[in-house]
Amino acid sequence: MIDQKGILFILSGPSGVGKGTVRKALFEQSTDLRYSISMTTRDPREGEVDGVDYFFKSRDEFEKLISEGQLIEHAEYVGNYYGTPRQYVEQTLNEGKDVFLEIEVQGALKVRENFPEGVFIFLIPPSLEELKDRIVNRGTETEEKVKNRLKAAKEEIDMMDAYDYVVVNDQIDNAVSKVKAIVASEHCKRERVAHQYKKALEDE
Amino acid sequence: MIDQKGILFILSGPSGVGKGTVRKALFEQSTDLRYSISMTTRDPREGEVDGVDYFFKSRDEFEKLISEGQLIEHAEYVGNYYGTPRQYVEQTLNEGKDVFLEIEVQGALKVRENFPEGVFIFLIPPSLEELKDRIVNRGTETEEKVKNRLKAAKEEIDMMDAYDYVVVNDQIDNAVSKVKAIVASEHCKRERVAHQYKKALEDE
Repeated sequence: MIDQKGILFILSGPSGVGKGTVRKALFEQSTDLRYSISMTTRDPREGEVDGVDYFFKSRDEFEKLISEGQLIEHAEYVGNYYGTPRQYVEQTLNEGKDVFLEIEVQGALKVRENFPEGVFIFLIPPSLEELKDRIVNRGTETEEKVKNRLKAAKEEIDMMDAYDYVVVNDQIDNAVSKVKAIVASEHCKRERVAHQYKKALEDE
Repeated sequence: MIDQKGILFILSGPSGVGKGTVRKALFEQSTDLRYSISMTTRDPREGEVDGVDYFFKSRDEFEKLISEGQLIEHAEYVGNYYGTPRQYVEQTLNEGKDVFLEIEVQGALKVRENFPEGVFIFLIPPSLEELKDRIVNRGTETEEKVKNRLKAAKEEIDMMDAYDYVVVNDQIDNAVSKVKAIVASEHCKRERVAHQYKKALEDE
């Protein structure tokens, strides 16, 4: 088991679908997953803490990290950068531990290029209407911003085909259970474990 | 959802690994799975009930069903026939319900030919040594029979490559949890659900 690399799980989905809420609920439960904190240039929302929810950076700082190759992926989304620091992900996987990313759709597609063996989970709302309600009820955005977000969401839903799993976020508990089931079942995938068991039996 | 076929899950693995125990523990919990009862010509073990654990048949009866094409698969194993009645499986899947089979390795390979879209789970003991212990401790077999079973088990372990998942039966509860995780995650597979969600969003 020790020489086995960890599995990279990526939770993504349209803006406003509740990725952050599902991720937080997941990590409030007991889990062996390690969360890779994203980096962003957007302003912290109320209650968000630097180094816990995100690493909050200025545009200048972010662009310096890009040029140094220190991000696995980065994307600009609604005028802000989002990105995934490289070192934490690679080191943790090499230690045999699973890494969990929660990122925007554009970023997830770029991670797929670098980590095709990753497990990509697409979080989807029960309907676009509900997505709209959630964005509106967040109450921190102008109507113009809401329109832009919805347009982006429709485009992103078309990107579902690049994912391995689709989880509907009808209730947070349901969505968390499904993500946990995906994590557990991926550890049972034959191509991952057959080698280990065959070797163990040969050693008898 | 209604027009969606159910998923066929197949639990198999070496003789003596505890397939029946895991299956029973799984069905003692709340589940939407429908269990397809196998047919066999072997004698009932203590506590086994006809029509619950197996349909127990004579060789003549069993061979008549084979010739009539009423079995999805059948195999002869340690001198006895085992088989899966066709009608229940096909009808239940068509009603959109998941079907769960617990069968011998030979039979599972034949089901794979007929249902390549099925989800094949291989139950494996922590070691061949433990498998041997379990077979010996069952205490209902001669030494000759035990030897035959072990030889068969080693051959069957080589068949792991034909499966989608490998679950180690270290503890029954662990194995049941993993099987349940596999069932839940298969329902989230993108290729199964993407079509449904895209259509729902187009209908907005």
